[in-house]
Amino acid sequence: MSEHSSQDIDALIEMMAKLPGLGPRSARRAVLHMIRKRALLLTPLADLMQSVAVSARECLNCGNIGTSDICGICASEKRATGMLCVVEDVADLWAMERTGVFKGRYHVLGGTLSALDSVGPEQLRIPKLIDRVDSEGISEVILALNATVDGQTTAHYIADQLEGRVQLSSLAQGVPIGGELDYLDEGTITAALNARKQI
Amino acid sequence: MSEHSSQDIDALIEMMAKLPGLGPRSARRAVLHMIRKRALLLTPLADLMQSVAVSARECLNCGNIGTSDICGICASEKRATGMLCVVEDVADLWAMERTGVFKGRYHVLGGTLSALDSVGPEQLRIPKLIDRVDSEGISEVILALNATVDGQTTAHYIADQLEGRVQLSSLAQGVPIGGELDYLDEGTITAALNARKQI
Repeated sequence: MSEHSSQDIDALIEMMAKLPGLGPRSARRAVLHMIRKRALLLTPLADLMQSVAVSARECLNCGNIGTSDICGICASEKRATGMLCVVEDVADLWAMERTGVFKGRYHVLGGTLSALDSVGPEQLRIPKLIDRVDSEGISEVILALNATVDGQTTAHYIADQLEGRVQLSSLAQGVPIGGELDYLDEGTITAALNARKQI
Repeated sequence: MSEHSSQDIDALIEMMAKLPGLGPRSARRAVLHMIRKRALLLTPLADLMQSVAVSARECLNCGNIGTSDICGICASEKRATGMLCVVEDVADLWAMERTGVFKGRYHVLGGTLSALDSVGPEQLRIPKLIDRVDSEGISEVILALNATVDGQTTAHYIADQLEGRVQLSSLAQGVPIGGELDYLDEGTITAALNARKQI
């Protein structure tokens, strides 16, 4: 792509293509779209990125991403103390938060235990979680980890560490709302059957 | 999304979600990824966008997007004069250019004729195309418009305007390389059959 566009435009396309969910083709489309909507998209995006690059930080307490050292959730007095929801990732925290149902606070692990990638408890803010359980007087820990092998391994490890000190729970497994049995895997159907509820 | 992240981060996610190919979920993923790779992605992207926002412009001659008033292709002395390839969009020009096969120059229409959206020849740089055919001594015009109804309508209109003045051609239609007949529409198969080549 030497003659058809400038170095900066090429470099922008190449960097956009590194974002998750974008490839070379969609990066080209996005860049052309931004150039066409320069005042509405390209300039404001550049400004916002600059400002987020300066201000974004991890909450020192829970690991959420925000613009202060202690995130809005940890700082809010409206959130119930005593309850912690443990999630793998900031994206999972945001997903939980969109439901608006959980009123406690969070703890973001930053991944899952993995022997292959040599990720141990120390890499995962698990020591910090155990600290918080003691120092914040937590009585219930909800393990909202992904229903994957790594997620469940990590949940078991944490449950072992906290056993006897707090009430532990994990998210229910079963048929998703709107889910059709024919399209579900056998594991999910088995879990839903075993956890059947009397009506 | 009030408590879980800052205003700037929310605004960045909302604006990223406006890019073609991205939605709210992929915008969130992209923004989290960028924040994690701040020095490698977020800051350089902000800088590149700022610089492209300032420098990007349409080539006054062909409509390609670059960083000078006359694009690299129009300015290059290596490109054959006398041959013009007419495309709908800058993305199409870049797609042609990636093949490296066409050695002439381009003319970007900026869309297709459309009675519904009241897009006439004046909105499409068609007058400029006719000017160029005369002033640049063009002998062959390749109509590389998309094989859609609008694209073909536009191609017919341009062919009418230029008839008798230049040699006109359009891209061949047929089975794409790697294409399987079973997955092709009847129109494509019909076109490929009618344009069959003796071997």
